[in-house]
Amino acid sequence: MKDLIQSLEWRYACKKMNGKQVPQEKLDRILKSVQLAPTSMGFQPFQVLLITDSELREKILPIANRQSQITQCSHLLVFAAWSNFSMAQVDDYIRLISETRQQPLESLEGFRAALAGIINNNTPEYLFQWSARQVYLAFGFAIAAAATEEVDCTPMEGFDARALDKFLDLEKQGLKSVCMLPLGYRDADSDKLANMPKVRRPLDQVITHNFNLEQETIS
Amino acid sequence: MKDLIQSLEWRYACKKMNGKQVPQEKLDRILKSVQLAPTSMGFQPFQVLLITDSELREKILPIANRQSQITQCSHLLVFAAWSNFSMAQVDDYIRLISETRQQPLESLEGFRAALAGIINNNTPEYLFQWSARQVYLAFGFAIAAAATEEVDCTPMEGFDARALDKFLDLEKQGLKSVCMLPLGYRDADSDKLANMPKVRRPLDQVITHNFNLEQETIS
Repeated sequence: MKDLIQSLEWRYACKKMNGKQVPQEKLDRILKSVQLAPTSMGFQPFQVLLITDSELREKILPIANRQSQITQCSHLLVFAAWSNFSMAQVDDYIRLISETRQQPLESLEGFRAALAGIINNNTPEYLFQWSARQVYLAFGFAIAAAATEEVDCTPMEGFDARALDKFLDLEKQGLKSVCMLPLGYRDADSDKLANMPKVRRPLDQVITHNFNLEQETIS
Repeated sequence: MKDLIQSLEWRYACKKMNGKQVPQEKLDRILKSVQLAPTSMGFQPFQVLLITDSELREKILPIANRQSQITQCSHLLVFAAWSNFSMAQVDDYIRLISETRQQPLESLEGFRAALAGIINNNTPEYLFQWSARQVYLAFGFAIAAAATEEVDCTPMEGFDARALDKFLDLEKQGLKSVCMLPLGYRDADSDKLANMPKVRRPLDQVITHNFNLEQETIS
């Protein structure tokens, strides 16, 4: 069995898929990783739409620059951030904490007030960007989980999010699409990227080791 | 050995750490996961600062609402998005692709133009939000990697990013801090969260299974 790093070395942004079906138990673990992703205050301000319907995917194809994985994958995940926030969501969450942890609601008043402050004292644009960041963290979990399941995927930003929101009627559901993740299997013969080396800046360029201020002043 | 989902079930946002040192080989794999994280166009528009210096961490403490993990962790990671973009960065990246994949620079002209378009046709605010999202994906990878290494961490947004940028002189380096990740080991006796059940919305509330438009129209 590969360890996580070996799995992450194995994965790549798959450009051509072969239509093979991802087994249910692998899909379930990938979705589970999304649920387990940590979020700011634990609020989970997003929704993931699982799309398998072929007709729907055919119609999403032109919205996503005709990237063939949309129809060649077996499952398409659309990651959508909440675009509306309300105290009802806050109270649902506070109740969930109270029930899960057997804590009286009164003991969660301070936490509720902090979350209410975020919801009520920030602009819709700020809150959307905040949610979108949480989406990306969960997106990372799904990509890592797919890799450990030896399932290919394509982290996808290259689509018209407004057109997709309109087509899927996401606004009415208080959602805005942020990114997509087709899940399936690579067609290694036709995908020239399948066998190319990964391009990454050297580790010591991505990470500043032993950062300290003196170093900065001297250099 | 735990599988990824078991590791993600094991992890939690650690509130109290015991000062124990994360071994180098575990730290290396966590940092490697950051390097391996996919990013938009593969551009990796971020930098991670690894801070171990105690004096520096003491000074970061008040900037981070005195969250004790800042000084109780063994390694503090500061995830910073690029805040300045230039064609020099684009050309460095294009050269890296060319060298890594033995592709002539000419064959990368179209890709270079696409990336140049992103850099040149968007506002600094848009580019920062774009980079910050990539940071969160890599942040997710680091959190997942820490979990598989049985290393505790605390995904941290609750700090004054501007004050931290000023203190670490990040602007001069073309960076803006986005989130932090203290790495260490839980102090299970004093951290009441260590043994509390995880709070998550049920899976079928986070994921909309078999999403289709008719369903939406009918319901």
